[in-house]
Amino acid sequence: MANTGEFALIADYFASWAPHSDAEQGVALGIGDDAALLDIAPGQQLVAATDTLVAGVHFPHDYSPAAIATRSVGVNLSDLAAMGATPRWVTLALTLPSELACDRWLAPFSAGLRQALSAHNVALVGGDTSRGPLTISLTVMGEVTAGSALCRHTAQPGDRIFVSGSLGDGAAALALIEQRWQAPEPLASYLRQRYDAPQPALELGAALAAVANSAIDLSDGLLADLGHLCRASGVSATIDSRRLPLASGLQHERQTVDWALRGGDDYRLCFTVPAALHNAVPAGCTDIGQIDTVEGEPTITVIDLDGQRDRLALQQLRGGYDHFAD
Amino acid sequence: MANTGEFALIADYFASWAPHSDAEQGVALGIGDDAALLDIAPGQQLVAATDTLVAGVHFPHDYSPAAIATRSVGVNLSDLAAMGATPRWVTLALTLPSELACDRWLAPFSAGLRQALSAHNVALVGGDTSRGPLTISLTVMGEVTAGSALCRHTAQPGDRIFVSGSLGDGAAALALIEQRWQAPEPLASYLRQRYDAPQPALELGAALAAVANSAIDLSDGLLADLGHLCRASGVSATIDSRRLPLASGLQHERQTVDWALRGGDDYRLCFTVPAALHNAVPAGCTDIGQIDTVEGEPTITVIDLDGQRDRLALQQLRGGYDHFAD
Repeated sequence: MANTGEFALIADYFASWAPHSDAEQGVALGIGDDAALLDIAPGQQLVAATDTLVAGVHFPHDYSPAAIATRSVGVNLSDLAAMGATPRWVTLALTLPSELACDRWLAPFSAGLRQALSAHNVALVGGDTSRGPLTISLTVMGEVTAGSALCRHTAQPGDRIFVSGSLGDGAAALALIEQRWQAPEPLASYLRQRYDAPQPALELGAALAAVANSAIDLSDGLLADLGHLCRASGVSATIDSRRLPLASGLQHERQTVDWALRGGDDYRLCFTVPAALHNAVPAGCTDIGQIDTVEGEPTITVIDLDGQRDRLALQQLRGGYDHFAD
Repeated sequence: MANTGEFALIADYFASWAPHSDAEQGVALGIGDDAALLDIAPGQQLVAATDTLVAGVHFPHDYSPAAIATRSVGVNLSDLAAMGATPRWVTLALTLPSELACDRWLAPFSAGLRQALSAHNVALVGGDTSRGPLTISLTVMGEVTAGSALCRHTAQPGDRIFVSGSLGDGAAALALIEQRWQAPEPLASYLRQRYDAPQPALELGAALAAVANSAIDLSDGLLADLGHLCRASGVSATIDSRRLPLASGLQHERQTVDWALRGGDDYRLCFTVPAALHNAVPAGCTDIGQIDTVEGEPTITVIDLDGQRDRLALQQLRGGYDHFAD
């Protein structure tokens, strides 16, 4: 389960169920990773993930219908990218107020949804529409060769930590949208595009199956998500702020590094690679640190721009990122 | 897609997409039935359905957390019952306001969810929690032998129409809850139980694979749902009000027949059977009418309590049932 802010602990209510022997048959990986892995046929696993976007929480109330659709698809497919899986089908649970149940809203929303899904050869196969506050929930189903999925709980001490693409784009874009910050062109357009249409790293995820020990989708922010990975794997980590990749046009300074470390909505992959496979990592990914053995309690050590080390207990990082707030 | 009231036409925005050749690979049955059928392995199909329950629309605002969970599961699994499929796994998209993100609400909700799922050997495998107005969306994934699923589009003229169990219970229960109507015990308790914990007819659905030509889940009301089936199959139908099965203790009168015909939330199965297999229908099901060839426009003819025939155009029946209203 993905969780933000005060909701970080809710998953515990569902994850802590004692396994029910008959019901759990075929569940290779349940609650707690980017997606579930389900045994459907010899050598093949079904991969399933659900994401919900709520108006006023995950996007501004006046956000365009097409952008809502595009963003929902990007967020949802990113979970499958982090598993190294191929998305095939989605179902849509669309809740919308009566005033949006009209052609003016539905035509651009459905067109945007179609375009975003078609770009990744994914079919909309069903769903449900209800009256209520605007909420979009997508469930994606996909496939992966049994045993080849990238998980959170399999990072090893000594692994190098990589991220795909630039970090902090989601938080910078939100600062732009909320007019708390300004950026020149073409940076502003780039950030806005990254926010409206996050591109799931599906090809990269598939390529990493043979290279990475573990992977996670960056939705809550690097520290929070790397924290999830470390907790699941029983490891600590060290990352260097000076190595965090930023969007072209941004310098490493207090604000941008904070966005990269703590901002959400980046939808990049964070993955760990054994040192021997370091050179096999695809281009465009950046080495930002290393997985460590746990000494005392599990921690993430952040080396700041001055080279100072700040050791953060994982427990402090559970909150994650509270998206666009009311 | 299931739809109610003004939302009946929304599915058209998504169902009318021209097939996208690559994306549609493996989609044996997409939007428009109770669930999607997806080819996952030789001889085997994945069955997927999504249902959303919104506070104040699908259940009262002060409804108990355990009942919300139980009802959500019943509604969701009923879609798979109507396909003759076996449910295996669900994902949960839970949106809830901050004041409910507490043990007082989450403990009974998660316990109710667990109990309802375990009763049918279904595992919760993932999900997403978000801050927002209370909305529960479940996506169920299950399995069926390829080619054996019960669909809406396969009714044949001459088929007899059956329903499982009593009709109108959902509407009668809502009248009780809203204090518009009164009922003596044990009828009142029975109706309340039917509303809180609708039992998906999974065993019946599986047994019908060898008997029925077509089936649909009764969620919007008999007339609306039989209308969906007739539209999909290109047929008309005749049903006899005097044969509609009512809860024990209720008589056939104007109000109860109206609930049985137009009330929603019954979660029974409506299915059609070739005349030759009439005797193979499991006990507890009632023959209520017949599938007809279309003469002029497709219609459902309702024989009322006085034996009078009322011929309703399918187009009139698209609205379905508008659940618990604000």
